[in-house]
Parts: sequence; structure tokens; C-alpha cells
Amino acid sequence: MTRANLISKIFEKQTFLCVGLDTDLTKIPKHLLDSEDPIFEFNKAIIDATHRYAIAYKPNLAFYEASGIKGLQALKKTADYLRKFDVFTIADAKRGDIGNTSEKYAQAFLSPDGDFNFDAITVAPYMGADSVKPFLTFSEKWVILLALTSNKGAFDFQFLKDEKNERFLFETVLETSKEWGTPENMMYVIGATQADWFMKIRQHVPDSFLLVPGVGAQGGSLQEVCKYGMTKDCGLLINASRSILYASDGLDFAEKAEEEAQKMQLEMAELLKNLR
Amino acid sequence: MTRANLISKIFEKQTFLCVGLDTDLTKIPKHLLDSEDPIFEFNKAIIDATHRYAIAYKPNLAFYEASGIKGLQALKKTADYLRKFDVFTIADAKRGDIGNTSEKYAQAFLSPDGDFNFDAITVAPYMGADSVKPFLTFSEKWVILLALTSNKGAFDFQFLKDEKNERFLFETVLETSKEWGTPENMMYVIGATQADWFMKIRQHVPDSFLLVPGVGAQGGSLQEVCKYGMTKDCGLLINASRSILYASDGLDFAEKAEEEAQKMQLEMAELLKNLR
Repeated sequence: MTRANLISKIFEKQTFLCVGLDTDLTKIPKHLLDSEDPIFEFNKAIIDATHRYAIAYKPNLAFYEASGIKGLQALKKTADYLRKFDVFTIADAKRGDIGNTSEKYAQAFLSPDGDFNFDAITVAPYMGADSVKPFLTFSEKWVILLALTSNKGAFDFQFLKDEKNERFLFETVLETSKEWGTPENMMYVIGATQADWFMKIRQHVPDSFLLVPGVGAQGGSLQEVCKYGMTKDCGLLINASRSILYASDGLDFAEKAEEEAQKMQLEMAELLKNLR
Repeated sequence: MTRANLISKIFEKQTFLCVGLDTDLTKIPKHLLDSEDPIFEFNKAIIDATHRYAIAYKPNLAFYEASGIKGLQALKKTADYLRKFDVFTIADAKRGDIGNTSEKYAQAFLSPDGDFNFDAITVAPYMGADSVKPFLTFSEKWVILLALTSNKGAFDFQFLKDEKNERFLFETVLETSKEWGTPENMMYVIGATQADWFMKIRQHVPDSFLLVPGVGAQGGSLQEVCKYGMTKDCGLLINASRSILYASDGLDFAEKAEEEAQKMQLEMAELLKNLR
């Protein structure tokens, strides 16, 4: 999906909600566990219930790999099912390896000939340029690079200030990686629990889309993130996982997920009004 | 596998060679492509030919994921096959995510009840403590944390010097992560093309095992790595992938792989003589 296409869909659907498909067999409604493929059944119900309110879906690979081959089959079925809808799909895989190996990961998740064919993949920056660039070679596909994450461990390394550049590691990741891609094929993961930092981040990447986890269950505020992070093109994908997926663990789980997604979409529509 | 067990096997077999199973369908002998599962057929032949000379095997996940579900089925068969031999198995997966998600990755690759049940997994440090600790909860299982990698991109971030600690990022990764695990459940990836740095690294982690890629195809020297990196318990796993796997692309590929592995084992036996 091109950037122009993504932006026009955001304004058409009046939403920049990304639904994180962190499908956990220990948390989904018990009645689904008897079906042949509980992960896919759950995902299908969630997608059916929320796609009118969401612009993107982001399965996190860990939740599928935890069920081994079966889990990956459910992931493939989910990726295939998502293609029926006009949504942006993200493999939240946090991959990254030396150049010839990252090429293989790119092939796995982004190639139109592969089993998954996602629009985007999240990538870890630690190994530098040659670990990231192979993901940028597919047309209309995206890298979403980890910059500032929403977890407590973000403070271990991402806030180290280097003496040469006088800035934090996550800022150097932003500045350095701007040379590898463009706002047309690269976004950044920015954890919403650090809303104070959004202004700083926008100095480094004024136009790039930011994928923001941590709104909802992890405690970030949508209003605050938008105040500092929004651009004239929106420039944000806000992810919610647990707050939507597990809004109820009963027979009404899809209905409650829909309500939750719609609530966020309405709030987002208000925020988009300020732009156009 | 416990550390004591690993060490005793190294001295028994007189080798600290790790064979990197980076099995690439574009590089394996053409005659294998007609078989039902070329990846597994190739791996089986390589394992049969080299297990006497190797202490560890390290499939890199990217090469399996590139073939989608089929590739992961080949990985499972490979992991099952490796359990017939008395070797240390490493999922070279470079995973890492927020705490509850890393738990799922740990379950995927380390759990004895899972499809793969590896002894160890490589983990990326960028997201900090809570992204790494969940991998340390399985008994006799290991985290192998990326510290200094062997690729060109290592210079983008790993050598940033932070103003508070007056040391490089990879040194801070070593120092910080020592609080999360012990030399009994944590190793480090240290790229062999930076042999000069081994002395510095041993100041930070004097006893830890180091997994060293980059000897062979990537240009590192075994002698130099051992000179600075070896401990009284060996303390090294030296990985070779392409130099063994693709020693020949003809019918004699397994034979040539065996020769290559044996050559390295003999060199390693000489180096071990200095220790005990």
C-alpha cells in the first residue's frame, strides 16, 4: 500500500486505529477452544466485528509461534482473510539480522509470493543499516522500525545519551535510519507511555508515520499522543490490542470488541476533524 | 543442557564448533530440490556428516520462515532430528518484545512441550530487561544475547559511546544484562571480525560463553578469537555456516562438509590442548 493510499483511507474511514491481533489461547473465550482452529476463529470474529472502525491489523508473531506450526497456519489464514478487507497489514515480528539473512525475513513476510504477504513488518534496529535495508526493497511495502518502545525496559538502552551527538539512542536511531528509507516506506514504533517525547520525535521525523502501541492497556492517552504526534496527514497509527480483543471473555466477545473499536474510532474522527 | 554438561562435552568431543544451518534453497545442491522436503533432506545429510565434529547446531529462523509454513515444518523435523544426537541446539531467532510477548516467544522456542524445544535462543537487546528475562525462566535453557555483531551495521549503534558510563553501547549491554542472568543461563553473540575487542569484552564477562559468528565466510580468524576470547572452560562456541554447508554444491556436498567440519575440529582440538 502506498502512503497516499493509506492517508486517503484514513480520511475516508475516519480512523487511524490499528487492531493488534495478540491472540492468546489462555485469554480467548473458552467456547472457542473446541473449534478446529481457535486462533483463526477468534481472529475472524474480531476482524468481522471491527474492520469498519480500523485502518490496520497487526498480528504479533510471538502469539502464533507459541502454538508452533499450528499457530503459523492460523497466522496464514488470518493474513489471507485480512486481504478481503481494505486494510493495512503489519507483521509485528521485530526481526533483524545480517544483510543476507534479513533478506530472507523480508521474503518471508513481505513477498507477494510468500505465505504471508503483509504490507509492513516491524524491525529491530540494533544491528544497523544492512539489517534493515533488505526490508525496503519491496514496492509498496513498509519497514516499521523500533525507536522508542512502550515498556519499562525502554529505559535500559534507548535513553543512553551518546557523547558525540549529545542525544539519546532512540534519537540517533531516528536520524540514522532516515538515510535508509523515506517517509514513503518507513514508519517508526513510538511507545505512547512517553507522550512527552513526541515533540522531540517530530523534530527528527516530521512527516513519518508513527505506530503507537501502549494506548489503552499499557496506559497511554490518545488525546496526548495526537496533540504532539499528529501531522497534517494524520501521521499516526494507534494500536490497541488487549482492550479490544479481551473486552469480554464470554459469548459476546465480538460485540464488546466492536463497541470498544467504535468508541476509539469516534474519538479519532473528532481528532481528524482538526486536520481537514 | 547445563553449563557443566556443555563444558564436559566440549572436552570429550574436542570441539567447540557450532554448525549454522542457514539452509538456503537457492544454494543447496540442485539434485535435492526434487525431494519432498529439500530443506530437511539437506540438513539431515549435513548433520549426519558433521555431528562427530560439532558441539552445537544453530538453524537461523529466517531461512526457514522464507519458505513459509513448509519451511517451519522442515525446522521442526530438523529440531527433532538433532535431539537424536548429543548436541546443543540454538534457535537463531534474534527475538525480543515487551514482557508478556517475549514470554510467548520463549514458549515457542524453549518449552519442552513446544514444537521446537531448543536449548537456546538468540535475543536482541534493544527493548531491555523485560524483553529478555522471560527467556531465562526455563531450566537448563539459555539466552544468547546480541552484544557485538559481525556485520557492517554493527558500527551504526553498537559503538555509540554514552556520556554517563564512558563506554560503548555493546559494553553497556554486557554490563546491564549481567544483572538479568548468569553465566549458567546466558551467553553473548560477539562478532569475530572485531577480534581486537575480545579483551575488552572479557573484562565485562570473564566467564560467559560467547557465540562467535563470522569465522570463515565473514572473515574472522579462529586463532585470534581464541587468543583473546578463550577461558579455562573454553568459553567459546564458534559458528561456521556457509563454509561448511556450501563447501560443494555437487553430489559430494556432505562429504565436503564433513571435511570442512573435521578441519575446524582438528584446529580446535589443538587449541583446547592449551587448557587441560
